[in-house]
Amino acid sequence: MNKAELFEQIKRKSSFLCVGLDTDLSKIPSDLLKLEDPVFEFNKQIIDATAEYAVAYKPNIAFYEALGPKGWESLQKTLDYIPKDIFTIADAKRGDIGNTSGLYAKAFFESMDFDSVTVAPYMGVDSVQPFLEFQDKWVILLALTSNAGSSDFQLIESKSGKPLFHEVLEKSQLWGNTDNMMYVVGATRGELIAEVRKLVPDHFFLVPGVGAQGGSLEEVAQYGMNDTCGLLVNSSRGIIYASQKMDFASAAKREAEKLQLEMASLLEQYCR
Amino acid sequence: MNKAELFEQIKRKSSFLCVGLDTDLSKIPSDLLKLEDPVFEFNKQIIDATAEYAVAYKPNIAFYEALGPKGWESLQKTLDYIPKDIFTIADAKRGDIGNTSGLYAKAFFESMDFDSVTVAPYMGVDSVQPFLEFQDKWVILLALTSNAGSSDFQLIESKSGKPLFHEVLEKSQLWGNTDNMMYVVGATRGELIAEVRKLVPDHFFLVPGVGAQGGSLEEVAQYGMNDTCGLLVNSSRGIIYASQKMDFASAAKREAEKLQLEMASLLEQYCR
Repeated sequence: MNKAELFEQIKRKSSFLCVGLDTDLSKIPSDLLKLEDPVFEFNKQIIDATAEYAVAYKPNIAFYEALGPKGWESLQKTLDYIPKDIFTIADAKRGDIGNTSGLYAKAFFESMDFDSVTVAPYMGVDSVQPFLEFQDKWVILLALTSNAGSSDFQLIESKSGKPLFHEVLEKSQLWGNTDNMMYVVGATRGELIAEVRKLVPDHFFLVPGVGAQGGSLEEVAQYGMNDTCGLLVNSSRGIIYASQKMDFASAAKREAEKLQLEMASLLEQYCR
Repeated sequence: MNKAELFEQIKRKSSFLCVGLDTDLSKIPSDLLKLEDPVFEFNKQIIDATAEYAVAYKPNIAFYEALGPKGWESLQKTLDYIPKDIFTIADAKRGDIGNTSGLYAKAFFESMDFDSVTVAPYMGVDSVQPFLEFQDKWVILLALTSNAGSSDFQLIESKSGKPLFHEVLEKSQLWGNTDNMMYVVGATRGELIAEVRKLVPDHFFLVPGVGAQGGSLEEVAQYGMNDTCGLLVNSSRGIIYASQKMDFASAAKREAEKLQLEMASLLEQYCR
């Protein structure tokens, strides 16, 4: 999916919601555990309930990998079930030396058919480049994450006074373009979003950390939105575990709709 | 496996060789492709041929992940086949926010039973900590990698004059100890190994980049060895693809033995 198609979908649904499919056997209703593939069954119902409000789905790969080969099958089935006009993100945080990153790219873009994959920047250009060689596929590069440990290295200032995540944003803009690169920008640090938007005016940001991780949607939109929206805001637990009983799908639908309504008004206000 | 057991094995075999199982269907003899599980069959023969010279095996997970669920099965079978007294490394370069890193840890340490996993430091302490909570398991943290892009961020100097990889080495020594943390230190930058050893006197280093990636084993030992060896030096392609014909196992054996003999004399000279 290219940027124009993504923005088209955002306008059509008045939403920039990404639903995180962090599906955890210990958190889904126990009645589902009797089924042959509880993870897929849960995801299927979540997708059915939220597809009209979501422009992207983001399975975090750790949840599937932890289940062994069966987990990868659930992931593939989930990906196949997501409507084709919705953007898909393999939240895998991969990255390795050149030829090896190429294999990860192959895994997520060819064997599976994700639109994008999250990539860690530590190993530099040749760990990212192989992912950029696929037509209409995206790298979503970690820049500023939303976890406590993000300050350990991402905020270290270089001699020239720039925190590391600035260096990542600046350098990597030379590797990709606004049609194949997005950035992970943590929303729990609202004050930093304006700073990042200044450095990266036109790229999309994937913003985790709204909801359970505690960021403010209003602030993200105010400081982060650009004229093609430029934001995918993720909510995982707040939606998929809105209820842990068998009404989880309708509860998820309610939460997704609530966010979408807020997003519609924020798009009205800030996307121009 | 703990550090004492690892060093015991190093002394017994007079070797600090790690064999990288980067098994690629396009590079293994085509006769194997007729078999039901060519990847496992190749690995099995490589392990049989090299186990007396190797103290560690390191499958790079990308090669298996690229094959889908079947690849994970080949990986599991390979892991099960490796003799129990040999150290195993899941070269996965994972790292995510706390609870999610915990799932990756579970995948590699519980679902599978690897001794160690390589982890990327960009997300900081809470992305690494969950891996350190497993008894007798190891994090091998990326510090200085051997690829061209390593200079993009790892060598950026902070205000205090330290390159980023120094910050990683310093901070992370507070998270783990010499019994549960090792570092990836690229051997193609021989001049830097002494510098790293000074900062981290007692930890083991996993050194990629000897052989196909071009580092010198002699230099690595001279500058990197400590009184418990402190080194695992990896060779992948140089061993496993020494021949691409059906004599690949005996060719691998020859290459592994050659390295082991060199290592025996380096241990004699520098491990004290």
